Amino acid sequence: MKEIHIIGVGLIGGSFALGVKNVHPNCKIVGIDSNPEHLEEAKTLGIIDATGAISDIGSADLVFVAIPVNHSLTILPEVLNHVSENTVVVDAGSTKEDICEAVKHHKNRRHFLASHPIAGTEFSGPKSALSTLFQNKTNIICEVEETAFKLQEKALKLFNDMGMRIRYMNPQAHDKHIAYMSHLSHISSFMLGKTVIDKEQNERDIFDMAGSGFESTVRLAKSSPEMWTPIFEQNKINVIETLNEYILNLKHFKSLMESDNFEAVHHEMKATNRIKDILNGMQ
Amino acid sequence: MKEIHIIGVGLIGGSFALGVKNVHPNCKIVGIDSNPEHLEEAKTLGIIDATGAISDIGSADLVFVAIPVNHSLTILPEVLNHVSENTVVVDAGSTKEDICEAVKHHKNRRHFLASHPIAGTEFSGPKSALSTLFQNKTNIICEVEETAFKLQEKALKLFNDMGMRIRYMNPQAHDKHIAYMSHLSHISSFMLGKTVIDKEQNERDIFDMAGSGFESTVRLAKSSPEMWTPIFEQNKINVIETLNEYILNLKHFKSLMESDNFEAVHHEMKATNRIKDILNGMQ
Repeated sequence: MKEIHIIGVGLIGGSFALGVKNVHPNCKIVGIDSNPEHLEEAKTLGIIDATGAISDIGSADLVFVAIPVNHSLTILPEVLNHVSENTVVVDAGSTKEDICEAVKHHKNRRHFLASHPIAGTEFSGPKSALSTLFQNKTNIICEVEETAFKLQEKALKLFNDMGMRIRYMNPQAHDKHIAYMSHLSHISSFMLGKTVIDKEQNERDIFDMAGSGFESTVRLAKSSPEMWTPIFEQNKINVIETLNEYILNLKHFKSLMESDNFEAVHHEMKATNRIKDILNGMQ
Repeated sequence: MKEIHIIGVGLIGGSFALGVKNVHPNCKIVGIDSNPEHLEEAKTLGIIDATGAISDIGSADLVFVAIPVNHSLTILPEVLNHVSENTVVVDAGSTKEDICEAVKHHKNRRHFLASHPIAGTEFSGPKSALSTLFQNKTNIICEVEETAFKLQEKALKLFNDMGMRIRYMNPQAHDKHIAYMSHLSHISSFMLGKTVIDKEQNERDIFDMAGSGFESTVRLAKSSPEMWTPIFEQNKINVIETLNEYILNLKHFKSLMESDNFEAVHHEMKATNRIKDILNGMQ
């Protein structure tokens, strides 16, 4: 791995660059970003060694695309126009169906590997990049059979070197399940933040009452709307389904409280406690 | 501070005991609990020095009551029956109106200080006690004027020694605002956990897709139903109000998605991002 180009040098792209440098210290990292300030910051922070342009990505062994998913739909085909024989293009988007569709008929489709590393924080930009972000994280690979074998092998070896676990899934299953496991959490958190801000906007002292529980539950409401709006747009049908079920469950819980059925309230919580074992089993 | 009795040696009571020992290493800590195993554990872990009974709390400088809030309603008057001239009784419950009401006409009301330290984790029992749990945390004191001056002074000095910030509030305001700042977070988290478990119960592999975002948002769904059911029962009216607003906000977000108004979806998230500044301002 001699040269990697990163398109989008924010939290995800920047962390990928730093993670690569942990395991391949001599690899040259070229950054490409529509935001010149981010490029400057990424250079200063030692995340990238040089800046580049999409037209030059043919010199890269691997191109990592970490931009909002609406931009991926137009940038990925353009990137694929410029690959050389040995270039593999990997994306990091939180939706996979539209992205796979956007490159489906591209003449260089076999140079693309659709991926979604399940890693992130609520922060954005190169300053929030972390060299260990991808360690011990799951990376979901979609339509692996559509990628040339030698190129998938190269990308998967790098993911492995960086300490990621690989899981294979089709784009439809990915988008459906990730709506439950990630997208819904973001909306529940944003709407929790909104509910509290709307109520307490004139009583700033009240935020002294926020404990670690509130902070943890509302953490994702700090996330970037620029990144999340196109995710919800692309995964609209699945996300609406999760919202319908979540709202039904909340209404049911409320109706149990209204009818003073606190035995059932207790049961609802007890049954959900097993999330503890499920998440532990995950480790 | 020579002797403190802790009623309920779980996460909160146990952490309080360890926190006291940090600043008053020679203080004798007596534990009282309906669960003999917890008492045994607390002794083994060095959380308490001895076990005791409610009838003996007269020898304590301070009694700290950290039990589910339904039990507080009956135990607190009983504890107040046994105080000596110098004993102050402090509770740690997440509801304050019913608790203040339960002791309102007690002949020893002036020995009671209603408090709610905003501190905790999703775990329970003496094993989860942390000596630093109360450091830099807010402790809400209600009806301070109903407590004898010398006794409030003693309790407040201890809270101060342990690094807590004190805020004063009336029980009605406490219960209303804590519904937003804490109780709602727990329900949003429990129902998120339920929604995901219900959907994915036959697909355990799917939990590999859980990232740190899901884990953070669902963390409170690990909390004890024994502790939380009576809190929701005592604070029913306020909690139902928060649920109504939360459900309305979720429905509105969903309707924006259904009508493809992603500009408004973006705006909703952008406006809520200021939770970042609000929570930072809190520190």
